[in-house]
Parts: sequence; C-alpha cells; structure tokens
Amino acid sequence: MKTTVSRRPVRVPGFRFAGVRCGLKEDGKRDVALIVSDRPAAAAGAFTRNRVRAAPVRIGQERLRAGRLQAIVINSGNANAYTGPSGDAVARAMTATVARALGIPEALVVPSSTGKIGVPLPRARVLRGVRAACRALDTAGFAAALEGMMTTDAFPKFAVERVTLGGRRVTIAAMAKGAGMIAPNMATLLTYVLTDACVSRAGARQALRRALPDSFNAIVVDGDTSTNDTAILLANGVAGNAEIGPDSRAFPAFAAAVARAMRTVARLVVKDGEGATKVVDIRVRGAASDREAARVADTIARSPLCKTAFYGGDPYAGRLICAAGYSGADFSPDRLNIFVGNVAVVRRGRPQGAAAERRAARVMARPEFAITLDLHCGRGTAYRVASDLTAEYVHFNSAYRT
Amino acid sequence: MKTTVSRRPVRVPGFRFAGVRCGLKEDGKRDVALIVSDRPAAAAGAFTRNRVRAAPVRIGQERLRAGRLQAIVINSGNANAYTGPSGDAVARAMTATVARALGIPEALVVPSSTGKIGVPLPRARVLRGVRAACRALDTAGFAAALEGMMTTDAFPKFAVERVTLGGRRVTIAAMAKGAGMIAPNMATLLTYVLTDACVSRAGARQALRRALPDSFNAIVVDGDTSTNDTAILLANGVAGNAEIGPDSRAFPAFAAAVARAMRTVARLVVKDGEGATKVVDIRVRGAASDREAARVADTIARSPLCKTAFYGGDPYAGRLICAAGYSGADFSPDRLNIFVGNVAVVRRGRPQGAAAERRAARVMARPEFAITLDLHCGRGTAYRVASDLTAEYVHFNSAYRT
Repeated sequence: MKTTVSRRPVRVPGFRFAGVRCGLKEDGKRDVALIVSDRPAAAAGAFTRNRVRAAPVRIGQERLRAGRLQAIVINSGNANAYTGPSGDAVARAMTATVARALGIPEALVVPSSTGKIGVPLPRARVLRGVRAACRALDTAGFAAALEGMMTTDAFPKFAVERVTLGGRRVTIAAMAKGAGMIAPNMATLLTYVLTDACVSRAGARQALRRALPDSFNAIVVDGDTSTNDTAILLANGVAGNAEIGPDSRAFPAFAAAVARAMRTVARLVVKDGEGATKVVDIRVRGAASDREAARVADTIARSPLCKTAFYGGDPYAGRLICAAGYSGADFSPDRLNIFVGNVAVVRRGRPQGAAAERRAARVMARPEFAITLDLHCGRGTAYRVASDLTAEYVHFNSAYRT
Repeated sequence: MKTTVSRRPVRVPGFRFAGVRCGLKEDGKRDVALIVSDRPAAAAGAFTRNRVRAAPVRIGQERLRAGRLQAIVINSGNANAYTGPSGDAVARAMTATVARALGIPEALVVPSSTGKIGVPLPRARVLRGVRAACRALDTAGFAAALEGMMTTDAFPKFAVERVTLGGRRVTIAAMAKGAGMIAPNMATLLTYVLTDACVSRAGARQALRRALPDSFNAIVVDGDTSTNDTAILLANGVAGNAEIGPDSRAFPAFAAAVARAMRTVARLVVKDGEGATKVVDIRVRGAASDREAARVADTIARSPLCKTAFYGGDPYAGRLICAAGYSGADFSPDRLNIFVGNVAVVRRGRPQGAAAERRAARVMARPEFAITLDLHCGRGTAYRVASDLTAEYVHFNSAYRT
C-alpha cells in the first residue's frame, strides 16, 4: 500500500523538529525524534488504558496534569515498558537532557517510547541521540521527526489542516506512528497534534477529547492495546488569535479541524495495518444506547471471521449477524437491517438473497467500503474503522524475531 | 493433523444411532444424524449465549426444561438459524417425524442443526433424511451418526469412559463436532454425552454443569461464539445401578468421568481448529478472583498477537504481558511470573533474558504446550485451551464461498 508524500516540508509556526539516528534500530534508520515549541504551549494528552504502562507514559500523564508543555522527546526501537525503576530513570534522563540543552524547565518536557517491551533502553546510546536531536532542531524537520518515531510503519502518517480562527490563519498538523492499535512488539501508537493557534488548556483538552472517539478510539487492527499508546495536543499561540476556550465562538471550527486531522491520520494507521488490504468503516445505529452500539461495532471490528470475510470480499451476512449476536448487546434479531455500502443484505431480519449478495460482493471488492447495521431499537450509534485479517498479518507476526 | 480412530464400533447400552445422506451437503456426505435411547433418559443441556439463537436451540431449551429426553435429531450443512417462523416449523417437523416413526412423545425429541446461517433449511429434503435415519437406527451406528453431524471437521471427535458405579460397569461416550467455537459458517459446536448410568435429572444437570468450565467453556479457536452451540447429556439408566443424584456416594466418580470425556473431546475440537497447528493450555493463577483470572486467560487465548506467536513459537513475553495488561484485570505488573512449560520467562516482573527464551522456544516448538501466568495477588484461577492463529486459518475463512 502506498501513499504520496508531499515534497514541501510541513511547517507549523513556532515549532521545530528533529529526527536522528543513535543505533536503537537494527536497520540504522532514525530512532530519536524531538518536537519543540518556541514557547510553552497549552497541552492535553490521552494515554493507553493498559494496566501495564510504559515508564514514559507514566511520566507523561504526571506532567500533562499542569496543561503546559514545551517539548516531546521520542525514541523508537524500544518501548521502555516493563523495564522497572531503571526504565523510569532513563526516561527522566531523556527529558532532563532536553531541558538542559534547550534551557527550559524539565517539567515542560515529556518522553515517548515505542518498540520492544521488557528490554532495557540503552541509556548512554539514547541520551547521545537526544543530545544530537537538540542540535538538529529545525523548522523544516517535521519529516525527519516523523521517521524517527516510525517502527513497522510502511509509510509516514500525517495530516495538515489550515483554518482561519478569529481572523488569523492557523495550522494544525497531526503526525502518527503505528501499524495498528496493535501493540507490543514494534507497533504502539503515538500521535502528536501541533498547532500555532492560541488555545486555553481547557480548550485543548476539550478539542482532543472530542476528536478521540471517531479517530484513535475508533480504529481496530487486531484489538491488542499497547502499553505505550499516547496522543498529545500542543497549541503554542504563535498565530496571535484571541485565546480559544471551550465556549469561544471559534471553538467549534478549531475542534472540527483537530478532529479532521486526527481522523485522517487514524485512518492512515488502519490503512497501514500490518498485512491490511482493506479499510472498512463500521457504523452501528438504532441501538439501545451508544454503549450497546459500540459493543456490536467492536465485536465486528475484532471478529476473525468478519475480518477474514472482509479480506475475501465475502458478503455472507451470517458472520455479521453472529458477531452482533454474541457482542452482548441487547437487540431483536428480527428487526436487524444490514447494509454493505448502499446494498441491503438483510432487511428486518431477512437475508435478501443471492442478487443482493452479488451487488454487495462488488462493493466489498473495493479497497475501502462501509458496513452499516441498524438494530431498530433505539438511538444509540457507534463508529469504527477496521482493517481486514490477512495471511500477511499472520506471516508478519509469527515470523518476526525468528 | 491426524488421529487414529478405533475400528471397533462405540456402543452405549440402550442407545441406537444412525447417520444418513439427504443432500444438504454439496459433497454428498452424511448430513442427518439420529441418537435414540431405548427408554426416556434423564437429560441436561447447555446452549449458546448468542443473542441470535437458531430455531433448534430455542426448541431444545424449551424441551430440556422437563429434564427428560429420548432422541436427538441432527442435521448438518444448514444451521437453521436466522430463518424466521418457517425455520421454527421445519425444526418442529423434524422432531414430529421422529416421534411418529418411533412411537415416542414429540416432547422427548430435540433437534440440532449446524451449517450456514440465514439460508432456509429445505423441508422436504431434511424430512426425507430424518425418515431414513429412523429406519437405519443401529446399536453400532455411532460412527455414522458422528459423520452425519460433521461440517468442516477434519476428523471425528469422541471419547469413551468406562467406570464402575455402585457395582455396575457403565459407559460414558462423548461425541462432538466443531472446528472451533468458531461460528456461523459451518463450524458450530454440537456435543452429546450419552451414558447408560442411572442418574437423576439433578445429577445429570450437576455433572454437565461441573464439566463445562474446563471443557467446552474453556476452548478458544477464534472467539466467535456461534448461534447453534449445544451440549446435551443423556443418562438412560440401562446399567441398572442405584440412581445417582448430586449427593450420592457415586456422584463424584460419575461427574469426574463425564468431565474427562468432555475435556477430551473439547481438546480435540481445538486440535481440529481451522488451520491450527498447536494446542496451548493457558493457566492463570494468583488473580484477585476467578473472574479476573478468566479475563487474563481469555484475552491471551483470543489475542491475535499471542496466537501468531504460538504459531511462530516465539517466546517473547511482551505480547503476553501486554495482553494481561489490557485484559481489564487488576494486578501489579511487578509481581507477575510467566512460565512457558516449566521455563520461567518472567519472574517478579523481570524478563529472564535470552537463555530462558531459548529454552522456552524449545518448549513452544512442540505441538502442545502450556503457558502459566501467576499474578501473585490472590487465589483466583482460570484455564483455557487455545489454538494458534495461522495463515491457513485466514486462507480457509477468506476463500470459503468464493
């Protein structure tokens, strides 16, 4: 799967970037990245709900509480997860090194790591990389930083939105790594959203919170939630617009642009899902509640039988009906409607036969398509974006390390 | 994967069996099976928890309430699920046909179906098969009946226990079909346990209930729960022992024999899991409760990353740690011990390094091995048996029907 990357460097006013090599990755690619704002930025974050949280995640959660940050220092090739007190010390040393080199408070720097779990992060090596990154900072360094955070990613994932807020042109850039939600080895999900808009801490928090359900909380490659998942939004105010809070007139436009950028990169993560050949939008409506709808959507998005049917382009509704049935959601099977694209394959609980299936099969042959279930028992809705399950996924994840 | 099947026919005193062809399966194999007890038997059943229950499941649940049955009539090739009122009528016609042909009350006959969902079960054809099965009943028909209920199964799955209860030699035979828990297409799980022991209804119910957690409720191929899953125990009392109730002295021996037979066939289902090359016993102990332990065991048994690692024989503990972490169970990561076979790969939260991993890799090269996690925070335990996830599974489930 390919995507075209613009030759023009992405710039976000008031931000500098770096991506360098320090030898954490065996293939010699960039493995340390640094994102620095010229001034302290309003900041909001969201982190993995895994019970096992990597050292950098714990430190990031602690420092995000104040709602202000100036720099993010990232390494790939090692998740610094399940590494005990010494892992914690290395993560803190990374942020202390950045603070010292740039003359900023250490409390305004957060670390992020992605890669293998349970392997000590080599302290001297990574700190050498961090120092080199501090020297390499550049307003045109976005692509280098993005490469420095990639692991099994086949292509860099980013989105740029430009909107006018309070009469000022602002930039919102989202960058992400991850070939799925999918976890520990080398595919944790990291995403950073950077903007020069002037936004209050509460505005940053609200915008991030609103964008998550339909972006990073909606994507499923294999359902494995990593120890390191991180999403951070930084707004440095360099654009000079009047500060945007949750109640500002400009807030909806700002939040919508953040949400668009995050949806775009989240979708790219699914597209780059290990072994994936399809991107499937799963919409559930008419459930008793949003929570019940989410159960159905999640179950379909994770079901190996549904995911292999997506891969094979098989419009057989039985697998979808069965998955909805064991999702735990309460609904009446004889009211269920199922659509593949615009084709009804089940109406009021009745499979619509071979002709409908043939039309649905043509929809499923496309690289991207939608599945919609209407439970007809309430107003609850849910949305997920899922990849298919392919033999390539199995090869990749069983052969890796051997 | 192969298994040897004894040439000597399985006989259970007081039971007759038949397996015939009526053209429901495209390959012309036997597709109707019949199990009949010479006299009404004490009966207990357990059924799928899927919200979408097939017509035969609904009828079976209703008739099992009385705790007495004499016959089970089964078809394969069509699940008679999601088939509306006409599906219900066909299932009832199947039992009425048996009742009429054998001169027994229809309320003592239950139907079972397995195969495709949402496709009408051809009434005339299946009833022709049922009539033929009534004519073909034979004490030596066990293998034919077993073939009549198979779908994607690569081999017949059964176990026979012989024990002495209250001075009488009794037989307990378990037969199962299913290449996984795994669902709608052609792989629902049906299992019948037949014994000539004299057991009260409460004794039958108790024995079945005790055997389920470590047998059919412990197995995971792909985590998809079908619309048709059924387990039924029939005890016809022909052996002439004093009736065994839950408080009888002979009950523990009876229940243990039922449990052994069910564990054996459940394990065979995993071994025959679509595309499976490994059978992995997953044991969790030291959890805050059995329920918390089950969360960890279930998550590992279903995780695509853990299952591909089983396939690849990769002893990397990161995937197991990560799965435990996102299972929702509460535990302290730095107390966790993980064993592959007898090899400790993690002790008190510390990965044990390359030498331990090499030893663990040798264990994982075997076709069957155990993974044990000790959370060290309570007395809760759980047990699951899982297959691995292979490219063959994906090929099979994506190519089927195309």
